[in-house]
Amino acid sequence: MEFLGSHLLSVDQLSREDVELVITVAQRLEPVARRRKITRALEGAVLASLFLEASTRTRLSFGSAFSRLGGAVRETVGLTFSSMAKGESIADTARVISGYADIMTIRHPEAGSVAQFAHASLVPVINAGDGAAEHPTQALLDIYTIEEEFAARNKRLDGSHILFVGDLKYGRTVHSLIKLLSLYDKMTFTLLAPELLSMPDPIVELVQARGHHVIQRNALPVTPEQVDVVYTTRIQRERLQGEQIEGYSRDFHVNTAFVNEVGDASTIIMHPLPRDSTPASNDLSTDLDADPRLAIFRQTDRGIPIRMALFALILGVSDNIEATYRDPSWRVSP
Amino acid sequence: MEFLGSHLLSVDQLSREDVELVITVAQRLEPVARRRKITRALEGAVLASLFLEASTRTRLSFGSAFSRLGGAVRETVGLTFSSMAKGESIADTARVISGYADIMTIRHPEAGSVAQFAHASLVPVINAGDGAAEHPTQALLDIYTIEEEFAARNKRLDGSHILFVGDLKYGRTVHSLIKLLSLYDKMTFTLLAPELLSMPDPIVELVQARGHHVIQRNALPVTPEQVDVVYTTRIQRERLQGEQIEGYSRDFHVNTAFVNEVGDASTIIMHPLPRDSTPASNDLSTDLDADPRLAIFRQTDRGIPIRMALFALILGVSDNIEATYRDPSWRVSP
Amino acid sequence: MEFLGSHLLSVDQLSREDVELVITVAQRLEPVARRRKITRALEGAVLASLFLEASTRTRLSFGSAFSRLGGAVRETVGLTFSSMAKGESIADTARVISGYADIMTIRHPEAGSVAQFAHASLVPVINAGDGAAEHPTQALLDIYTIEEEFAARNKRLDGSHILFVGDLKYGRTVHSLIKLLSLYDKMTFTLLAPELLSMPDPIVELVQARGHHVIQRNALPVTPEQVDVVYTTRIQRERLQGEQIEGYSRDFHVNTAFVNEVGDASTIIMHPLPRDSTPASNDLSTDLDADPRLAIFRQTDRGIPIRMALFALILGVSDNIEATYRDPSWRVSP
Repeated sequence: MEFLGSHLLSVDQLSREDVELVITVAQRLEPVARRRKITRALEGAVLASLFLEASTRTRLSFGSAFSRLGGAVRETVGLTFSSMAKGESIADTARVISGYADIMTIRHPEAGSVAQFAHASLVPVINAGDGAAEHPTQALLDIYTIEEEFAARNKRLDGSHILFVGDLKYGRTVHSLIKLLSLYDKMTFTLLAPELLSMPDPIVELVQARGHHVIQRNALPVTPEQVDVVYTTRIQRERLQGEQIEGYSRDFHVNTAFVNEVGDASTIIMHPLPRDSTPASNDLSTDLDADPRLAIFRQTDRGIPIRMALFALILGVSDNIEATYRDPSWRVSP
Repeated sequence: MEFLGSHLLSVDQLSREDVELVITVAQRLEPVARRRKITRALEGAVLASLFLEASTRTRLSFGSAFSRLGGAVRETVGLTFSSMAKGESIADTARVISGYADIMTIRHPEAGSVAQFAHASLVPVINAGDGAAEHPTQALLDIYTIEEEFAARNKRLDGSHILFVGDLKYGRTVHSLIKLLSLYDKMTFTLLAPELLSMPDPIVELVQARGHHVIQRNALPVTPEQVDVVYTTRIQRERLQGEQIEGYSRDFHVNTAFVNEVGDASTIIMHPLPRDSTPASNDLSTDLDADPRLAIFRQTDRGIPIRMALFALILGVSDNIEATYRDPSWRVSP
Repeated sequence: MEFLGSHLLSVDQLSREDVELVITVAQRLEPVARRRKITRALEGAVLASLFLEASTRTRLSFGSAFSRLGGAVRETVGLTFSSMAKGESIADTARVISGYADIMTIRHPEAGSVAQFAHASLVPVINAGDGAAEHPTQALLDIYTIEEEFAARNKRLDGSHILFVGDLKYGRTVHSLIKLLSLYDKMTFTLLAPELLSMPDPIVELVQARGHHVIQRNALPVTPEQVDVVYTTRIQRERLQGEQIEGYSRDFHVNTAFVNEVGDASTIIMHPLPRDSTPASNDLSTDLDADPRLAIFRQTDRGIPIRMALFALILGVSDNIEATYRDPSWRVSP
């Protein structure tokens, strides 16, 4: 796709070259993300950040990324706009707000609604999550994380083996990510989920049609070979009933023993966060917190350079961004 | 009025010269509003934006205008401040918050309360709407819109004919706007509303006392001559009962047929927005959406330069603002 | 303490030299706080301001202070984060958000929770109030106010007499402030409170152990000598029952007569605000509003330079901050 001036609504818009371009720009922006440098490249620009569904971390991540580039962020948070409560159409709302801004990030509880916003907007729209449908910037930061973690371990993404475990039916994150990964070559995907929460068939078929090896399992053991990535997901409790959670809990709890069984010292563990740390949740175990294989916080940190890269590409400042770098006058925590 | 350092609480403060000054400054700020230029004129200044009643678009419009001028925006949104819930007076709240900022914009559900805030504030206050009373920046962006649309059609505001249609009793927007328009010469105003929702007598008398021609109607046909502006308003459903809405709906629905009957190719259609697009609302019809006479989105866009102009005048940076203009380093959507 | 890169969680971290350093930096930042000068010292830095309990004024004060230093503020307000509602631990939340920012300010309803945040954070955390436990920046702005007001009256803090009146049991403000004041020499503290709301014994013992004179009273007259400061507090209504409020109301209402009885023309009157101005509250009387001894608004104003000073010290820009000062291009209200 041509990023300049475009909406980013779905990972379906992205080719492998697009993904690699975003990653390259993100890498070039790491000095700013790590606050070794500052830039004012977007000085004078305004982001309108509209979160019609609560998502504190995603909202703050987009906002910080835009702030780091020197732009101003105007926000609204809530289940609806006051104007929508008065019967205003999405088209009217989008057209009006787009007149105040240079770019918009939108989170909405309904699948497809962000595309409706984009259709009526004067300015580019980035989908920050629409219901169970899409969350393309999460998938991009996930793939950036895999690339960076693999590079540090002298591994390549092509030909690697990714284990997805947990709720593979409702998690939009895993849907978007496996689609992006299927743009690479000769991947193996093991999908470990209870029968009721298995990956939707159309996605499995798409991945297979692109020539990848897909293994579906409902219980351990999952594989004779070591996996390179264990990608876990939060249980969508609101969609599960009593016994289902029971069954889920016993077999799919990712902890140190689980990782040691399916992986080795070079395996990395990912999670889109938040993870549920309440005792009965059986979400990703805290017994891995000191394990260097646990990449979940490096993963969330990488949301900043990825989102900066998208803003920079869409607003046309990525080409020579290094020329705008200056030293901060303040000091960064070590 | 002298804008520098002053509150803007009511259109009653404004003379025709004041309105023309605001419009002139808004025109000079259009390059910034359209992002052909950026400015940092208000760098270091802080706007405290207090919305004690929900109004997403007005809040974002004020905030974006201040951001475009280079200032920082600190906001609070909600039915009340936490401190007010603890029994704090408006005077204390206003005095405290004014110590954090250089200017304040306040929306409050009660008529007159913004003036109370202003009385206790150390810094200038702009009324962003107080109940059914005043919304002066909306009236200014409306009159700016009429001036600009007329200029593009080689028309003059003096001597023109404005049709107000809908709820003329409760809509503060039309009250403020007709007062401002009555500062011009030899206007004709047709007021089309159901009996129960007609324009309050004191306003009609004020307009007549200033020498203008006022025609009041409860049904079509409204006029033997063509009108220059059709200004429609949202039905304040919360104030109407069953049959009243019925009666209202049948006679006052502004759509293409309505506009063709009362106007011609040079007529413009305005609305303060939001418009209610739910099927039974009978608010301004979407059948006009592709009609070049529909000025409603150009109207809302003009809120940015008008609010920038007010900030610039009140904070004393309007005189030579062009000297601060720079080119943006990012690219604007076409 | 070493401020650079450190958390500020409790006044217990501070020595007298630390307090004096913060005050000195605050004084040097007054030209910015008063908008005679602007600075961009923190350009490129991001504050994440997390208010998990409502506190409009404290949030706006921190935010304005950071904006005045040239940094960007990203905020979240609400009883909880959406992620915490999904079972995320404080440690995970803190770690994730700290990856988006250079410094955090946190208000939380539970004592000790801000320290938990700080423990997991990558960046410095300033406690903006955690339940009944601590609110160190309020204590610092209070002591700065006393120093400045005394200087204007040719008084010294060492050897002075401070009267605390009201709810001394639950008010975290008075607990933190008396601890800081006890770092000075030969103070006299009179504590006037109903029996049920008297200052906790451990604090009284700490102050006495540091060599100060403590007088505890449950009714007037409080003292044979004049006091230098009357520090009043809001009644924590939610913690009092019917008759208790009655008894409280009659004896502890600070008004002009009260101040004239215990003080003289050089006495100053302070209050952490908000004050309850509803008729039956018996909080600090408005009959003092025109009295030059009433320092409550000068007190809240001083929150800006104090918070700027803390940001500057922790982020390492305090040393030569004056070198960054420029003249604003806009004009300040007189």
